[in-house]
Amino acid sequence: MTAPPKITLDQIREHMYSAVLCDALDSVGHSQQSPRTQLRQLTVPQMIVGRCRTTLWADMFHEDSEPYALELQSVDSCQPDDVVIAAANGSLRSGIWGELLTTAVRNGGCVGAIIDGAVRDVAKMRDMNFPVVARGTCLYDSKDRQRVVDRDVPVEIDGVTFCPGDLVVADEDGVVVVPQTVEEHVLQLAWEKIHAENEVRDAIRAGMKAVEAYDKYGVL
Amino acid sequence: MTAPPKITLDQIREHMYSAVLCDALDSVGHSQQSPRTQLRQLTVPQMIVGRCRTTLWADMFHEDSEPYALELQSVDSCQPDDVVIAAANGSLRSGIWGELLTTAVRNGGCVGAIIDGAVRDVAKMRDMNFPVVARGTCLYDSKDRQRVVDRDVPVEIDGVTFCPGDLVVADEDGVVVVPQTVEEHVLQLAWEKIHAENEVRDAIRAGMKAVEAYDKYGVL
Amino acid sequence: MTAPPKITLDQIREHMYSAVLCDALDSVGHSQQSPRTQLRQLTVPQMIVGRCRTTLWADMFHEDSEPYALELQSVDSCQPDDVVIAAANGSLRSGIWGELLTTAVRNGGCVGAIIDGAVRDVAKMRDMNFPVVARGTCLYDSKDRQRVVDRDVPVEIDGVTFCPGDLVVADEDGVVVVPQTVEEHVLQLAWEKIHAENEVRDAIRAGMKAVEAYDKYGVL
Amino acid sequence: MTAPPKITLDQIREHMYSAVLCDALDSVGHSQQSPRTQLRQLTVPQMIVGRCRTTLWADMFHEDSEPYALELQSVDSCQPDDVVIAAANGSLRSGIWGELLTTAVRNGGCVGAIIDGAVRDVAKMRDMNFPVVARGTCLYDSKDRQRVVDRDVPVEIDGVTFCPGDLVVADEDGVVVVPQTVEEHVLQLAWEKIHAENEVRDAIRAGMKAVEAYDKYGVL
Amino acid sequence: MTAPPKITLDQIREHMYSAVLCDALDSVGHSQQSPRTQLRQLTVPQMIVGRCRTTLWADMFHEDSEPYALELQSVDSCQPDDVVIAAANGSLRSGIWGELLTTAVRNGGCVGAIIDGAVRDVAKMRDMNFPVVARGTCLYDSKDRQRVVDRDVPVEIDGVTFCPGDLVVADEDGVVVVPQTVEEHVLQLAWEKIHAENEVRDAIRAGMKAVEAYDKYGVL
Amino acid sequence: MTAPPKITLDQIREHMYSAVLCDALDSVGHSQQSPRTQLRQLTVPQMIVGRCRTTLWADMFHEDSEPYALELQSVDSCQPDDVVIAAANGSLRSGIWGELLTTAVRNGGCVGAIIDGAVRDVAKMRDMNFPVVARGTCLYDSKDRQRVVDRDVPVEIDGVTFCPGDLVVADEDGVVVVPQTVEEHVLQLAWEKIHAENEVRDAIRAGMKAVEAYDKYGVL
Repeated sequence: MTAPPKITLDQIREHMYSAVLCDALDSVGHSQQSPRTQLRQLTVPQMIVGRCRTTLWADMFHEDSEPYALELQSVDSCQPDDVVIAAANGSLRSGIWGELLTTAVRNGGCVGAIIDGAVRDVAKMRDMNFPVVARGTCLYDSKDRQRVVDRDVPVEIDGVTFCPGDLVVADEDGVVVVPQTVEEHVLQLAWEKIHAENEVRDAIRAGMKAVEAYDKYGVL
Repeated sequence: MTAPPKITLDQIREHMYSAVLCDALDSVGHSQQSPRTQLRQLTVPQMIVGRCRTTLWADMFHEDSEPYALELQSVDSCQPDDVVIAAANGSLRSGIWGELLTTAVRNGGCVGAIIDGAVRDVAKMRDMNFPVVARGTCLYDSKDRQRVVDRDVPVEIDGVTFCPGDLVVADEDGVVVVPQTVEEHVLQLAWEKIHAENEVRDAIRAGMKAVEAYDKYGVL
Repeated sequence: MTAPPKITLDQIREHMYSAVLCDALDSVGHSQQSPRTQLRQLTVPQMIVGRCRTTLWADMFHEDSEPYALELQSVDSCQPDDVVIAAANGSLRSGIWGELLTTAVRNGGCVGAIIDGAVRDVAKMRDMNFPVVARGTCLYDSKDRQRVVDRDVPVEIDGVTFCPGDLVVADEDGVVVVPQTVEEHVLQLAWEKIHAENEVRDAIRAGMKAVEAYDKYGVL
Repeated sequence: MTAPPKITLDQIREHMYSAVLCDALDSVGHSQQSPRTQLRQLTVPQMIVGRCRTTLWADMFHEDSEPYALELQSVDSCQPDDVVIAAANGSLRSGIWGELLTTAVRNGGCVGAIIDGAVRDVAKMRDMNFPVVARGTCLYDSKDRQRVVDRDVPVEIDGVTFCPGDLVVADEDGVVVVPQTVEEHVLQLAWEKIHAENEVRDAIRAGMKAVEAYDKYGVL
Repeated sequence: MTAPPKITLDQIREHMYSAVLCDALDSVGHSQQSPRTQLRQLTVPQMIVGRCRTTLWADMFHEDSEPYALELQSVDSCQPDDVVIAAANGSLRSGIWGELLTTAVRNGGCVGAIIDGAVRDVAKMRDMNFPVVARGTCLYDSKDRQRVVDRDVPVEIDGVTFCPGDLVVADEDGVVVVPQTVEEHVLQLAWEKIHAENEVRDAIRAGMKAVEAYDKYGVL
Repeated sequence: MTAPPKITLDQIREHMYSAVLCDALDSVGHSQQSPRTQLRQLTVPQMIVGRCRTTLWADMFHEDSEPYALELQSVDSCQPDDVVIAAANGSLRSGIWGELLTTAVRNGGCVGAIIDGAVRDVAKMRDMNFPVVARGTCLYDSKDRQRVVDRDVPVEIDGVTFCPGDLVVADEDGVVVVPQTVEEHVLQLAWEKIHAENEVRDAIRAGMKAVEAYDKYGVL
């Protein structure tokens, strides 16, 4: 199947997966686009494909006069196909994502959340069929424990930069972010790579040795 | 639904969950009641609600003349609604909980086990439908590797104190322990909080913005 | 059921589990045969029983002239009942195991993979019903990131030695390797231990106290 | 030597040390006043005694319009006997303290810095004879990597709260903070404890067995 | 210099160092005799050579009726050339060694302490010229936080067994323990190794290439 | 003092330090040139300035037919002003650097060693006045435990690339590597930065507030 001239989010959802995007990014010299942090799919085993809506979080230890101010603004600004990116540096100090925030962002069309920190209300978010990828869980309310200190700015998870609007894909294998400058090219390359892998797989299934397959196709 | 004057363990099982108890504890100034350790539900995804039956474990490296002495006494002392709390400081040196111990404590009416250490026989305990929350698994027998050095004393998991007889609740989001001095008050507050959250959730579902919802209801 | 004179891999698959082998190894003085590393069953919850086919991996940071040389030789040498043992020191630098390698080793009869490192293509390997036990996942291709530096040599995972040809068993509780010098003896002992445990379990189920059961049977 | 009615900072500097304050705090039920984090004396092996001047830091990943705003305000507000408390959650992302900041705070009379993060310019701060206790070192400028998000608020290091104005003492053994509500009482108790320890030490030096000494004096 | 027929502790102190003992142990198949834990010389940079006087420690969280019972017995039992081995599994929960205990064990002739945990009173123990090797420091009293649960039994530090009476040597490079069954043989081998290394060193200093030196002498 | 047209290694040794090079690299967009790993100056507190002579190490667990082959070749190839860069991924499995290797590389003019792993013979290397920066110490010989798998290739320490021939500077604050493509430019910028910092320092010493100083000079 030939790649369409412009690949849409829905076509990514149907045909692609995270690893092939990572390989395509490698081939254009972007080799730091996937956090190695072991984020887990906590609610449903569903691929997330969308655009980064970023928040930067910080731990805190005093009474906050406006505990959820920036966080709620970010939630209310969500657009269709947005993916919440909460960069909390892996802090498990509180559950910074949960049921009510999920309810709110879905109103705007948000399709998933990637939380480099802890969440709570896992069962309820599973009932809502909302995919959440996170470091872990924590029972504590975020109030006076963590807060959003910036929104809609570039953030990092494990040294990987997520810019507002970047394409992000997350599945069981991991999370990958595609910078907008190379997005179109990378999607085309990924489309081709999927085709090439199919050939190798078929050859090996038909009994070809791995050494021979690599010699012949040059991919693995 | 109005809170009953005295909330029972069965009513907790039916109506409550761990996070709301944590919020209620926060509101009465008990803000260190949930270990942040990522304990996992290893057998069945079932909420544990009961009272703490504590053991304190220590690593050891020599031949033990009475390898299971205190452990077996603790097991045999289990009462209905007891929850085994094994505080092993997160040591994965051996599997300190397993099928035979589970069989024994169920005779006494024990409803689950929270192990800050490793367990084994996961498949068999799942077959028994016995909920176990633990740090991980380890194949080694505990004999001459770890032993109970105290039982029915206050113990800590990740800095949180579990006293014998305290109410403990564990679900997918985490573990929370409620000190007996505040138990009744906290349960009432949690009951009310559940009601308040329902209102906010309904409002947001109906399209209210998160900023507005927080302004109006003052909770999130 | 009396132990057969020579216990086969299929009999292990039907009757045994990892923990009882670990106990039998303990009783003959082999007390370091199971890594405590929390390796997870990433694809299917299926016991792996077979013989070690080892590779030793190293991280790398430059362009490799023959990126997959030793790895592909190892893959192509797989025999029936082999289990891939990839000792990568827990490095999550890239996904060193995946769908194409799985396709290739299955041609030779390989029954599972134990990876002390990261893998990718989890969903596809699950579709192939191929059991993989690993530290985690990573999206990156191994090319120029990690490579096999030796194959068919003794390797270690968490201080435990896996020799080529050793019996290895992995299930939900953990991984255990049985040195060939004691294999036959250990399998006989494990067979007996299973029987003894059944007796204790029945006694406890019938209401015997744990203290009494341990006094009478001497096992737990 | 009898305790003076009001113990001054200079008397603490001359007569006390961190461990005895910790013991005195224990005896009045304040048992969480010393971070267990292994902070090191990076410049000079000199005891720090003073009052907390706190800053709360957060990691960041984008271009900052006012990179050092709150940090410089905090520096310029330093008063005699202040001790800089930089709570950065142990982040080693950049060197958040260094020579120029040291030069500036000394103008105000600051007597030392306790940094739960990284510093740079160690040699120059040593030449200035300025005591710095920190997690480690990092060469990177803090600009666009970390910044102060709050100042003069309660902060935590390893779960221990440091409030603005609290007495803090740091030496080779560790760091201890004394809440203002119990300061006077704790200083009196510490003064007595020093005397009691002298007696025990003399008795043991004179050949008394440890068991006997503890029986007689009740301290160790 | 020819090895004496029986090498004394004083001869070890004068002529040997930890690494050469480790090499000698390797050559007789004892390859797990040195913890890799980064224990530090906290008081004085002085080699410790003596015989293991072991204690096994456990964390605790309740009020202890006899807080220092076994610990003080162990202290009072110290003999000339004993080295305190405190196996606390690396716990930094309290300072389990300090000035008063040091004062007491020196009465018995103890020559140093190796603490797999935390200590306090570092400056005072330095003034006493008493070598202490430890994980770190902690200000808290051990009372109701940690206690000795066994003494004069085999203990482990990082998987290495220290038996009562075993020869132990600690210097800036690390800690090594020599089992009594091989002690005499290992000391002879170490003596020879020191001589062989001197030859290689002299050859390289005289300009011989490393490749040639290894070819000729077979050691490095 | 005006920067000379071409800054030599000796001029770097006399006038520069690691942090200012890091700042200069930041200003030309090279913001990942210093490992955050806490490497320590184990022998002498002496700045290392020279060019990278790289080796890549891997852990191993079997008998090696040529245990030191690549390592000795690398040692014998050392040129004046070379700095040994041993990239062992932080493994503390053995002491991969020590006295004999130091003796050998000094013959070639090597000026220091940066070891992302463990070393031994610290006291002897200190006596030789040879600066060694490392993760820690380990008593074990590297034979059959670790080996060099590549030499004179790009290697990484904590994600930072060290290419053969690159300028490397290490002091108490950390380690920084300067890619050859920007070396000349970076050295000029660092020279200027040192001058600018002197001005700010003088102004603050003279009593200028930090806020004012930053407003005026734009650096900190």
